[in-house]
Amino acid sequence: MARTLYHLPLSPFCRKVRVALAEKKLDYEGVIERPWDERPEFLDLNHGGTVPVFVDEDGTVVSESMAIVEYLEEVYPEPSLLPGDAAARAEVRRICQWFDLKFDGEVTTMVLAEKVDKRLMKLGAPDLELVRAGLTNLAYHMDYVSYLSEERKWLAGDDFSLADIAAAAHLSAMDYIGDVPWVHFPAAKDWYVRVKSRPSFRSILADFIPGMPPPRIYADLDF
Amino acid sequence: MARTLYHLPLSPFCRKVRVALAEKKLDYEGVIERPWDERPEFLDLNHGGTVPVFVDEDGTVVSESMAIVEYLEEVYPEPSLLPGDAAARAEVRRICQWFDLKFDGEVTTMVLAEKVDKRLMKLGAPDLELVRAGLTNLAYHMDYVSYLSEERKWLAGDDFSLADIAAAAHLSAMDYIGDVPWVHFPAAKDWYVRVKSRPSFRSILADFIPGMPPPRIYADLDF
Repeated sequence: MARTLYHLPLSPFCRKVRVALAEKKLDYEGVIERPWDERPEFLDLNHGGTVPVFVDEDGTVVSESMAIVEYLEEVYPEPSLLPGDAAARAEVRRICQWFDLKFDGEVTTMVLAEKVDKRLMKLGAPDLELVRAGLTNLAYHMDYVSYLSEERKWLAGDDFSLADIAAAAHLSAMDYIGDVPWVHFPAAKDWYVRVKSRPSFRSILADFIPGMPPPRIYADLDF
Repeated sequence: MARTLYHLPLSPFCRKVRVALAEKKLDYEGVIERPWDERPEFLDLNHGGTVPVFVDEDGTVVSESMAIVEYLEEVYPEPSLLPGDAAARAEVRRICQWFDLKFDGEVTTMVLAEKVDKRLMKLGAPDLELVRAGLTNLAYHMDYVSYLSEERKWLAGDDFSLADIAAAAHLSAMDYIGDVPWVHFPAAKDWYVRVKSRPSFRSILADFIPGMPPPRIYADLDF
């Protein structure tokens, strides 16, 4: 059977898996799944009802983005997206979890969920106070991304890794709605230009939500 | 140097690491760290400012709970807390991330953060509407824990694993404030009795927050 990824285009968790699959040059069929539709066939795959869900060619079903990328790393080890020693791998996983918990809770959920998910789910107007608070948090966290970008070649060290993928997954989703103040964070921007230039990022940059076009700079390498 | 864990007693993320360390019989010094104090020496260890932070005896510093437990699994593989094949490991990691993202966002953050963290941080009274919504979500998620407990010996399969540790870390923190409706979920309760009975859980059951004692059943194996 064909490998399949059930995903939502703007979900940072889904984007992480899409880029990891592309880095490993693994073909798959992408199926857009709106978890709020609670499609029974989809709930059979993942009782938790969340995207992404990955189905491998042997029928193995894996849900939750970190579980999927760790699985890909074990089953398809080349090219590796985790460095060679335990401490360096821990640093990669630290950055991934920091984005998935802290950045997501304090930025993505407050801005993207309010501005985009609510609209897609027809839940009414965004709570502008939440959006403003999320954007304030974003500037604070961009400082941290800049700090990492200045200290290191890639976010977790010398090599491109899942840390860069997780960070770019979250920031690119925010960038789709034009909310990342790159101009104030040149070091972070330099890093993002390098991530954006990778072939694995092309499908992310080609995303287009009907009725919700991205700003021109979204897919632009020279923004 | 002595291994050190900077942690907060009721944090589910910290509890996960404490139980993993105890399962692997690794000695360490526990230091209670209130992240909101923003202690400069602590921020030097983890710019992100979150607990848990683990310092190994060779000085390696690891932050974020999943990064720490994966690190422990790599450096101290016995006894293993992850099963042998990639698909089974993926299932363990799926349940861990489900608790750390979904359960935490929809239950722990809404109930424990409102009832306990706000009080410790002197931020005023809990938002009772949030607490009520969190408790409604808890019942819904307990259904899922019961479902897993009925289908399998342990939450992710035949063997005790990080999945049981992550789930019990979150549920035990909620149980400290007496908010888990075990009586309605006998299968989940059976599973939790078995987790509670493990020596690795003793330090969790001995936790005591001054001015905020747990209910009698919290440490009781026959609740």
